Amino acid sequence: MGNGRPRAREWGLRLGVLPPGPRNAITDVEGVAVGHTTLWMGEGPLVEGVGPVRTGVTVILPHRGNLYLEKVPAAQFTFNGYGKATGLAQIDETGTIESPIAVTSTLNVARVADALVSHCLEQNPGVGRVLGTFSPVVAEIYDGFLSDARGRHVREQHVREAIRSASTGPVEEGCVGAGTGAMAFGWKGGVGTSSRVLPASHGGWTVGSLVVTNFAGVLTIQGLPVGPLLGHMPLDLPAREADGQPHEGGSVIVVLATDAPLSPRNLHRLARRGVIGLARTGFFGTHTSGDFVLAFSTAVRIPHAARLPSGQESLVLPGTGEVRNEATSALFLAAAEATEEAVLNALFRATTVVGRDGHRAEALDLEKLRELLGNLVSR
Amino acid sequence: MGNGRPRAREWGLRLGVLPPGPRNAITDVEGVAVGHTTLWMGEGPLVEGVGPVRTGVTVILPHRGNLYLEKVPAAQFTFNGYGKATGLAQIDETGTIESPIAVTSTLNVARVADALVSHCLEQNPGVGRVLGTFSPVVAEIYDGFLSDARGRHVREQHVREAIRSASTGPVEEGCVGAGTGAMAFGWKGGVGTSSRVLPASHGGWTVGSLVVTNFAGVLTIQGLPVGPLLGHMPLDLPAREADGQPHEGGSVIVVLATDAPLSPRNLHRLARRGVIGLARTGFFGTHTSGDFVLAFSTAVRIPHAARLPSGQESLVLPGTGEVRNEATSALFLAAAEATEEAVLNALFRATTVVGRDGHRAEALDLEKLRELLGNLVSR
Amino acid sequence: MGNGRPRAREWGLRLGVLPPGPRNAITDVEGVAVGHTTLWMGEGPLVEGVGPVRTGVTVILPHRGNLYLEKVPAAQFTFNGYGKATGLAQIDETGTIESPIAVTSTLNVARVADALVSHCLEQNPGVGRVLGTFSPVVAEIYDGFLSDARGRHVREQHVREAIRSASTGPVEEGCVGAGTGAMAFGWKGGVGTSSRVLPASHGGWTVGSLVVTNFAGVLTIQGLPVGPLLGHMPLDLPAREADGQPHEGGSVIVVLATDAPLSPRNLHRLARRGVIGLARTGFFGTHTSGDFVLAFSTAVRIPHAARLPSGQESLVLPGTGEVRNEATSALFLAAAEATEEAVLNALFRATTVVGRDGHRAEALDLEKLRELLGNLVSR
Amino acid sequence: MGNGRPRAREWGLRLGVLPPGPRNAITDVEGVAVGHTTLWMGEGPLVEGVGPVRTGVTVILPHRGNLYLEKVPAAQFTFNGYGKATGLAQIDETGTIESPIAVTSTLNVARVADALVSHCLEQNPGVGRVLGTFSPVVAEIYDGFLSDARGRHVREQHVREAIRSASTGPVEEGCVGAGTGAMAFGWKGGVGTSSRVLPASHGGWTVGSLVVTNFAGVLTIQGLPVGPLLGHMPLDLPAREADGQPHEGGSVIVVLATDAPLSPRNLHRLARRGVIGLARTGFFGTHTSGDFVLAFSTAVRIPHAARLPSGQESLVLPGTGEVRNEATSALFLAAAEATEEAVLNALFRATTVVGRDGHRAEALDLEKLRELLGNLVSR
Repeated sequence: MGNGRPRAREWGLRLGVLPPGPRNAITDVEGVAVGHTTLWMGEGPLVEGVGPVRTGVTVILPHRGNLYLEKVPAAQFTFNGYGKATGLAQIDETGTIESPIAVTSTLNVARVADALVSHCLEQNPGVGRVLGTFSPVVAEIYDGFLSDARGRHVREQHVREAIRSASTGPVEEGCVGAGTGAMAFGWKGGVGTSSRVLPASHGGWTVGSLVVTNFAGVLTIQGLPVGPLLGHMPLDLPAREADGQPHEGGSVIVVLATDAPLSPRNLHRLARRGVIGLARTGFFGTHTSGDFVLAFSTAVRIPHAARLPSGQESLVLPGTGEVRNEATSALFLAAAEATEEAVLNALFRATTVVGRDGHRAEALDLEKLRELLGNLVSR
Repeated sequence: MGNGRPRAREWGLRLGVLPPGPRNAITDVEGVAVGHTTLWMGEGPLVEGVGPVRTGVTVILPHRGNLYLEKVPAAQFTFNGYGKATGLAQIDETGTIESPIAVTSTLNVARVADALVSHCLEQNPGVGRVLGTFSPVVAEIYDGFLSDARGRHVREQHVREAIRSASTGPVEEGCVGAGTGAMAFGWKGGVGTSSRVLPASHGGWTVGSLVVTNFAGVLTIQGLPVGPLLGHMPLDLPAREADGQPHEGGSVIVVLATDAPLSPRNLHRLARRGVIGLARTGFFGTHTSGDFVLAFSTAVRIPHAARLPSGQESLVLPGTGEVRNEATSALFLAAAEATEEAVLNALFRATTVVGRDGHRAEALDLEKLRELLGNLVSR
Repeated sequence: MGNGRPRAREWGLRLGVLPPGPRNAITDVEGVAVGHTTLWMGEGPLVEGVGPVRTGVTVILPHRGNLYLEKVPAAQFTFNGYGKATGLAQIDETGTIESPIAVTSTLNVARVADALVSHCLEQNPGVGRVLGTFSPVVAEIYDGFLSDARGRHVREQHVREAIRSASTGPVEEGCVGAGTGAMAFGWKGGVGTSSRVLPASHGGWTVGSLVVTNFAGVLTIQGLPVGPLLGHMPLDLPAREADGQPHEGGSVIVVLATDAPLSPRNLHRLARRGVIGLARTGFFGTHTSGDFVLAFSTAVRIPHAARLPSGQESLVLPGTGEVRNEATSALFLAAAEATEEAVLNALFRATTVVGRDGHRAEALDLEKLRELLGNLVSR
Repeated sequence: MGNGRPRAREWGLRLGVLPPGPRNAITDVEGVAVGHTTLWMGEGPLVEGVGPVRTGVTVILPHRGNLYLEKVPAAQFTFNGYGKATGLAQIDETGTIESPIAVTSTLNVARVADALVSHCLEQNPGVGRVLGTFSPVVAEIYDGFLSDARGRHVREQHVREAIRSASTGPVEEGCVGAGTGAMAFGWKGGVGTSSRVLPASHGGWTVGSLVVTNFAGVLTIQGLPVGPLLGHMPLDLPAREADGQPHEGGSVIVVLATDAPLSPRNLHRLARRGVIGLARTGFFGTHTSGDFVLAFSTAVRIPHAARLPSGQESLVLPGTGEVRNEATSALFLAAAEATEEAVLNALFRATTVVGRDGHRAEALDLEKLRELLGNLVSR
C-alpha cells in the first residue's frame, strides 16, 4: 500500500460537509471486510490466453460469518445497465444478499460467479440438496484496454484467496484487485474507498463506499473541469474504442455499507445517492457504461429459514427497529459524499500502468493538478 | 424579465464543456413553448384562503398544436418519489405525453389537473365520448413557507392563461409561475432554464432543460460549498419544518426537451441524466423531496389513433428513424450540463421574497458569492 | 343490496382452495371500511354536463382514524399503466398510504383528489403550514359508454359522503360507487369483493380484495370461455370505441388489504399476485387498460413524524415484527384467489344498466351461464 | 420425440380463442431455433459430482446468424425475482439481446454463461479487444430434487452442442434439456411450447412461447383444480424442501418470440402477458420462485455499431416501422394463450422420472385427468 501517492484528503482536498470515519474506508462500518487478488503478468503484445494480464478480483464481505446462513438486508440501483452484473434480481426480490460481493473483469464474471458457488457449496453442504439455492453477486468493469480480457484469467483460487485475505482494516486502493486494469476519465482508475460518520443527533451511523472506477466523463475536482484542462475530453474520443485508444464507455461499481438499520426499501434509496456522488466528479453515464450501486446494512442479519432451531418454521421476523423515513436524509448525504471521495481516491492512488500491446494508462498528474487547483486546495 | 439580476453565464460562470443554444433555454428546442401565471397577493399574517399568496403555475408545451391528437414520445424518471406528480404511469406505459406539462404548488395539483382536463375536453369534443380518455401531467413543488398553500389559489383561468401566453421565445426565470414561492438550498429558488447544442459530428441536436428548484442541499458552485460558507447547511435544520423555518425537504421538477429522435426508452435514459446535473449543484434528494424528471422529443409526433384518415386503423407506425444507442452519450452529457446551469439560473435570477407571516426568502447574495469564488469566475 | 342476484359462491361456484372470511369481503380484514356514493340521474340522449349520469365514487379506508397521522404500510403494482391513477410515486417511495383510497370515473380523478385534499386539510390544520404535504390516492375506470363522463359529476360532497358512510360491515357490490357505469368482458361490471383466511399453520391471516372491473377479456369461468360462448369476444370489437359500442379497453382497480404484518416490499409482491387472480377470469390487459393493484397492511400504523410526543424526533421506528419472506407464499395465493372471486362477484351482482344515448350494458345472464357450466357448478 | 404421450391439444384440450401456428411451437416464428442437450446419468444414491444426473441445457436462438453482430430487440419482465438469471440489466438498458438465450440448472448458470462467452469470443475475435463486451443471457430452474445439482454437470461442450443442434423445426418437449429434472405442480414438469397466429385484420403476426416449468401451484385445467383433486396441494407441503419431498418453490422461465415489429417498450408489455398465461394454469409465484419472461422480436436486427461499413458511425437507426400501441392487444392475448398451452404441453409430454436417492417425479396421469375432466375435453 506504499506507492507514495496520497489519498485525496491527504493531498489537501476537502470534500463534503460530513467527517470521514477513522479509516476513511468502507471498513469503518464494523465487520465489513475487503479482499483483493491482483493478477499482473507479462508485457508486450497481446497473446490471447497468455497475457499481458492486468486484472483481478475484489470481494466485499458484509460480515465474515456464513453469509448464506446469515444474510444481510440489501438493495441495488442500476443507473445505466450496460453491464453484466449478476445476482441483481434476487436482491430486488428478497431484499437480501447471501453472497460475498465480487467485482472483476467483464468477461470473467461467470468464472467468478462459479467460484462463489463453489465456495458456498463447501460452506453449506445442504445447498442444492435440502437448503435451497444460492445467488452469487458479481459485478464487473472492462479492463481490456490494458489486459488480455479474453483470457478470463481470474480463476477459482483467486476468488478464494480474495475471500480468505479479506480484512476489516485499511483498504488498498488504486491498481489492485478489480481495479488493476481500470481506467477513469482517460487516466488510470482503480479501487477507491471513503466513509462518513453522522453526528449523534442524526443517529451517529457510518456510511462507507467502495468504488471501482472505469468510466468516461469530464473529470471535475473542486468544480474545475480538470479533465479537459489536462487533455482528456470524453466527446472528442471516437464513439467506440479503436485499438490503442481507451474505450469511451466503461463502468463504475459502487458498494455502500452502513451500520444504520435500514430496510431494503431505504437501502434502495441510499443506493440511488451513490450516483449523486459519482455525478460530482464528472460522471454522467455514457451509453456503454455499466453503473451499478449495491447497498447493504450490517445492523441485522436475516437467518436462512432452514437454520431456525425449532422444528416449526417461524413465520415472523422479530422486529429490530428500522430507521424512520424522516431520518434518512443525512444518510443519503453521507452516501453521496463518501462515493465522491472514493472516486477521487481511486484516481489519486492509482499509478501509471503499461499493459497489453504497450497500451498506457497514465496516473493523474498530481503536480499539474496542484497548479490548476492552486489555492482551491485545503481551504 | 428585467429585475437586474444576471443569469449564471452572464455573471461569469462557465458550466460544462458543451455550448448553449442561442437563448440558452428550453425553447432552443424548436417549437417548445413555456408559459407562466404568477399569483402574488397580500402581505402579513396568513389568512387561509386569502393569502398572502406567492404561487403560480408554469406550463411547458412540447408543441403548440393539439397535443392530444399529436402526442410526443416521452419518458419520466422518479429519483425520489415523495411527491404528488400525476400522469406518470401512462407516460411509462405508452411512451407518450398527450398533455401540456404543468408545474404548480403541491396542494394545487388536483385543481391544475382538472383545468388541463377542461382544456382538453374543449379542444377535443370526442374525448370521454368516442375518442377515449386523457391523462393530464402535473408536477409540483411545496411553496407553503411563503404562500397560503392551503388556499389552493391556482384556478382554471390561471392554467388557461399560462397555456395561452406560452411563448417559444426567451423564458422568464426566477420568481415566476410555479417558482414564485420556491426555495432552494435555503435561498429563494424558482424557475431556471438552459440548453446545450451538440457538435455536428454528434448529430447537432439541442437539449433544453427547465427546472423548478425547491430543494435542500449543500449549494455548490464551481465545486465550492458556498451554501455552508454563506450560512445554509441543510443538516443543521430541524428534521421537519417548524413555523418560520424553511422545510428541510422540498422538491425539484426537471423538464428535458430535445429535437433528437429518441425513443421513449432512450428518453428514459436521458431523464436519468437530469439528476446528474442536479447533483453537481449540491442536490442529494432529501427524504421529503419529490424529484421528477420528464423528457420528451419533438422529432416525431404520434397521432392519436382515431384521427387517422382511413376507416381502417393503421397497425404500424411508419419508421422515422431513431438515435442509435451508441449515439446517446453526448445527449446525456448535454442533459446533465443544461440541468446544472438551469438550477443556477433559478437561483441567480430569483429575488428576495417576503411572504406569509413575514417569512423571508433571501436571494442568493451575488456580491458575497463573487468574494468567495474570486478568480474562479470567468476563467 | 337486495337486487336479487347472487354472489358467485352463493350461486354455486367454488373458486380456489382457501376458505373465505365471514363476510367474504375486504372488510374481513379488521378495521377496513368501504363507502360508496352512487350518482344516477337522467335517461336518454347525452347532454354534456347534465347527464345521463351513471357514475360514482368508492372509498376504501385502511382504518377509520386519521390516516394522515397514522399511515399504513403500502405498495402498488402497475400491470398496464394506461390510466390516470394519482398518488402512486409517493407510495413507491415512502412505502405508506396516508389517504383514503378513492376510485372514480377517469375524467373525475382530479376533482376527487381535490376533495381528498380538502378532507385532509380539515382534519389536519397543520398540513400545508407546518406538517408538510399530503398525497391523495385516486384510481379510475372509464364509464363514458354509459355516463356523461365529460360532465365530471362527482364533487367534493360525494367524496365526503362516501367517507362518512364507509362501513366495516358487508360491502355493496355491482352497480354502486365507482362501479356504477363500469363494464367487464362486454357485460355490466362493477364493484366486487372477496376474502381468504389462511390456516393457522400459515399464520391465520386474512387477505381481502376489492375490485372495480371495467376491462375487456375472454370471460372464463371454471375454465370455460363463457364470454365467446355467450357472444362477447374481445378481438372482434373494433380497436377503439365507436359510438354505441363498448370500448375495447377499460381498466381494473384492485385493492388488497391484509392484517399480516407485511413490509412494503412484501406488499409489493402481494400486489403483483392481484394480477394472478385477474388472469384466471380471462383478463389479459389490453393496451388501453389502466390496471393497478394497491396493497396495504393494517398490522401496524406509521406515525406521521411531527406527531411524536417528545420534542426530539425519533430516528428509529420500533420493530414490530414482519412476515418472513419464507412465509409469504400462502398470502400470495390468498390474494390471487380473493381477486379472482371478487371479479366474478362484480359480474354476478351487477344488473343491466341503460345509460346515455340508450347505451345498454347487459348483466351477465346467469341462466344461460348455468346451462353452459352445467355440472361444473357446486362440485 | 416419440414417448407416446400427447400434447395438450392432441389430447383434446382447447385453450384460448386464437389458433396456433403450424407447429404450435415457438419455431412458428420464422428463424427461431431451439436446441437441447439432455444429461441423464446414473441411478441410486446421490454422490456429489458423480450423479445421478437429470439435467441439461436448452438454448433459444432468435436467429441462426451471429447474434452479437445482429442483435434483436428484446425485453424482460421479472414477476418474482428469486432466481439467478443473468444478463437482465443489459436487456433492460439497451433493449436488445446479443446472446443465445440459455436455460439450465440453478447452480450451473455461471458455467453455462461462461460457455456462451467462449462461443461469442470464438465467433467474434474483436470482442474484448476492439469491439466492446458481451452479455450472456442465462436463466435457470432448480432440479436438485432429481439430480445432483451441486455437481454442476452442464459444461461448455453441452452448451455448444445445444447451439449446434438447434433446429427451426418441431421442438422436443417434456424431459429434455433444461426440463430434464424439472417439476411442476408436484408432477414431473419440463419444456413446453406453443404458438398463436393473429388474424390478418390484427396484423397476421405469430407469437410463440417456450417454457421451462418448475413451480408449485394449484394445477388448474379447464378451470378445474385438478392438482388438489389428484393429490397435489401446494400449501400442505412444508415451507422448504426436506429430503425426499419436492421443494415448495421452483421457478418458471418463459421465452416469447414474435415476428411483429415491436419496440423494446412493447416487448416489455408483451413479456408481462406471459404471466397471464401462467396464472391460468394455477401458477401464483411462490416466494422461492424465479419467474422470468424474456421477449424478443425477429422483425428487425440491430447491427452492432462497429460493424457498419463506413468509417463514420451512423448516429441514427433507419426507421423500420413498429407496431402502434393501439395494435398491441391481440399480441398480448396471443402471448397469454401460447404460454398457458406451453405449460400444459410441458406436463403432458413429461414422463415419470426417478432420480437421485430414488426421488420420483410422476408424470401427470392422463387417464385420471380424463376421468376428472370428462366431457370438458374437446368441446
